[in-house]
Amino acid sequence: MQSILDFIEANHERYLAELKELLSIPSVSSQTERKAEMRRTAEWLQNHLQVVGLQNVQILETAGHPAVYADWLNASGTPTLLIYGHYDVQPEDPLDEWKTPPFEATIRDGNLYARGAADDKGQIFIHIKAIEAFLKNGGTLPTNIKIIFEGEEEIGSENLPALIEAHKDLLKCDLIVISDTDIFEKGVPSVTYSLRGLSYTEVEVIGPNSDLHSGSFGGSVHNPIQALAEMIASLHDKNGRVTVKGFYNDVRPVSKAERAAFKKLPWKDRTYAKKLGLKQLYGEKGYTTLERLWVRPTLECNGIWGGYTGEGAKTVLPARAFAKISMRLVPNQDSMKIGKLFEKHFKAIAPKTVQVKVKVLHGGEPAITPIDSPGVKTAVAALEKGFGKKPLYQGEGGSIPIVVDFKKLLKADSVLLGFGLPDENAHAPNEFINLDNFFGGIRTCAHFYKDLPEYWKKGKK
Amino acid sequence: MQSILDFIEANHERYLAELKELLSIPSVSSQTERKAEMRRTAEWLQNHLQVVGLQNVQILETAGHPAVYADWLNASGTPTLLIYGHYDVQPEDPLDEWKTPPFEATIRDGNLYARGAADDKGQIFIHIKAIEAFLKNGGTLPTNIKIIFEGEEEIGSENLPALIEAHKDLLKCDLIVISDTDIFEKGVPSVTYSLRGLSYTEVEVIGPNSDLHSGSFGGSVHNPIQALAEMIASLHDKNGRVTVKGFYNDVRPVSKAERAAFKKLPWKDRTYAKKLGLKQLYGEKGYTTLERLWVRPTLECNGIWGGYTGEGAKTVLPARAFAKISMRLVPNQDSMKIGKLFEKHFKAIAPKTVQVKVKVLHGGEPAITPIDSPGVKTAVAALEKGFGKKPLYQGEGGSIPIVVDFKKLLKADSVLLGFGLPDENAHAPNEFINLDNFFGGIRTCAHFYKDLPEYWKKGKK
Repeated sequence: MQSILDFIEANHERYLAELKELLSIPSVSSQTERKAEMRRTAEWLQNHLQVVGLQNVQILETAGHPAVYADWLNASGTPTLLIYGHYDVQPEDPLDEWKTPPFEATIRDGNLYARGAADDKGQIFIHIKAIEAFLKNGGTLPTNIKIIFEGEEEIGSENLPALIEAHKDLLKCDLIVISDTDIFEKGVPSVTYSLRGLSYTEVEVIGPNSDLHSGSFGGSVHNPIQALAEMIASLHDKNGRVTVKGFYNDVRPVSKAERAAFKKLPWKDRTYAKKLGLKQLYGEKGYTTLERLWVRPTLECNGIWGGYTGEGAKTVLPARAFAKISMRLVPNQDSMKIGKLFEKHFKAIAPKTVQVKVKVLHGGEPAITPIDSPGVKTAVAALEKGFGKKPLYQGEGGSIPIVVDFKKLLKADSVLLGFGLPDENAHAPNEFINLDNFFGGIRTCAHFYKDLPEYWKKGKK
Repeated sequence: MQSILDFIEANHERYLAELKELLSIPSVSSQTERKAEMRRTAEWLQNHLQVVGLQNVQILETAGHPAVYADWLNASGTPTLLIYGHYDVQPEDPLDEWKTPPFEATIRDGNLYARGAADDKGQIFIHIKAIEAFLKNGGTLPTNIKIIFEGEEEIGSENLPALIEAHKDLLKCDLIVISDTDIFEKGVPSVTYSLRGLSYTEVEVIGPNSDLHSGSFGGSVHNPIQALAEMIASLHDKNGRVTVKGFYNDVRPVSKAERAAFKKLPWKDRTYAKKLGLKQLYGEKGYTTLERLWVRPTLECNGIWGGYTGEGAKTVLPARAFAKISMRLVPNQDSMKIGKLFEKHFKAIAPKTVQVKVKVLHGGEPAITPIDSPGVKTAVAALEKGFGKKPLYQGEGGSIPIVVDFKKLLKADSVLLGFGLPDENAHAPNEFINLDNFFGGIRTCAHFYKDLPEYWKKGKK
């Protein structure tokens, strides 16, 4: 094992040069005009996985952006680990807030800045380099490995379930490892045991049948922006609770054990607020910030637009106003059910002066993974070796809907072994990955592959 | 006079061809990239006024877009009439809602469709053609005339007061006529006796110091879009009254006589709502729709934006959200004072979880013109001859701040002689001018010039 770790240590510079190349391709899955860049990224990965020494490397087509597959299955008698990640990234806007261009990776203060550095190109690259270290030093892996990197995570992984269904045998595995989450903070490695789900909607408030002059008509018509603002304002009560009827019906109560586990984590509201530039935090009354983030559901406005938004003044009373509104879900909320509850509620609160349309764009289910499973135990051991520190348990506010799909379609549990940081601007300008975590991640993954067969055997006893 | 009217009748086709040319130049004053088009329009007008036979034609430079001046001062012993209009237009967006291109004027069902057809290129063209009818038939005008067409009305006429100040002698006059308003409805000619003012602001709500991932941070931070929505929602109470502290302090109460005058106008709320595609109107409790539109102040959201507004889903919790908020003012509200009251109020209602910036972009004062003045009397007589029908009195919900400036700087009253229609989409897609009103307007203006000297003499006795 030492030769593997020495090899990793000796190749830091090369790893960064290769990763920069991967990060330079703007693989924004939500933008139609970037379709060719998506394909270029998949082909880059295909080529790189071949160079690394993986076998059976191939592009798997979907109805949308392609996925990339590879495997190495010559470690007989070992469990088969499926490594999942995604190569697509969030849009880079607002572009003018980036200190360095989003698709020209730049190192500053021990961090690598680029769109996708942490979410999730940097993290899939961690696995590739851990695999390479074994294959270039002895030519074998300690456990069977399959890889699936998809290109539609940021747009809801719509075609992934069909892809898994179509390639059930190819993707058959004993355990899945997903590296798309954060460790708790720099120097505090952690395993994520719970994930929030998502229900994402777009709403439209329709007033008059045409944009109107706000002088000639103002005062007689309910302005759709005003109506939308009034409706959005009513979606939270004065205690910060979501008012959508039935929203909390299926929410699993937070247990005493969970509350105690979260209290072990180093956390100060004041530090958190200061880092975000806020004088005061906001949230549901009766819960701590970590509880609000990990085990309580929320409702957020992700975007709003209507009327004149250009330079200067236009005295228009617009015909329509729009918003993107999403909800983060916790067990045992169901994203379809919540989407429907929201649609029903939003239509019910619309005043007679306007009409309302609601589109449920996509959703993902919340999930919890057992802490005493062999996969999570291997992860805890590997993190301790990779980072030299006992990891803690944490939740994750974001969604990885694929965890639910894998369980359903491949009957396998997922281990969430993430190497991001919570403040790395995953969906914002100046996204980065911390280089200590990046290299620590490669070491951790190497240990994970090495240790998995033994924990697996014990677990199966 | 019959030869003048016959000439007008005989030249309808040519008028439309010339107006289409004027309407083809996209003179959007608010957009920096259209600066050259603004100059082109001023030069087109300069050339056309020369061809028509006006004298002393010249472009007057300002700190912004230029104005165009011309005169004809050979009718000794007559009052000097200053004709004011503007050649700049509103932005054409949203472009995809236009049935025919905004800068390719098209006739459909007796209307001429184009950006600026009614507001205000079509209306300044009415005066040019009435003047031409006299100068091409006898070579003289019945009264002295000066023309000033500005290029910044849609952006608040910021440089016009300085221009008037700099050319006080050139612009000296006895009366001003402004054609930038509507008649009450097709077949109901009317004179506008009151105008609303305007105070236009842009607000910014600032939350965290960077866009955040709505999964990782949602639930702990007051979303700036939500905060903005809550603040906007609070700007009206349940009776539709504006809650800005002190907003109604200086509002002139609506008199019994005004309420009675408005009741003479043909009006049905149901027809109005139906035309706008609305099931229910909205407005301040205790006032009729016409009162709400003409003699009561309002607050409107002209635009709102924040977060992700593109295609698909982006799970962002944005750092900032913006809105354009304007108020329509009535006598004796003061636009500066109201702007300050709004700024103070908006900052006062901001929760501690966000920061707020308010910019007061521009303003204009409300105004009332005496109904028994010689100018208004001439207008009433001219409208009756031009349209064959006794005109009514009405208010105007929009603003013409220049009325206030003219009174202050030139010590002259303004007569509001408008030929638009209230549903002509002045600031919206598919703006048009009705051709009956266009030609009726030319006849009315010819009568106005002809009758003014006599009414003026009587008025001065």
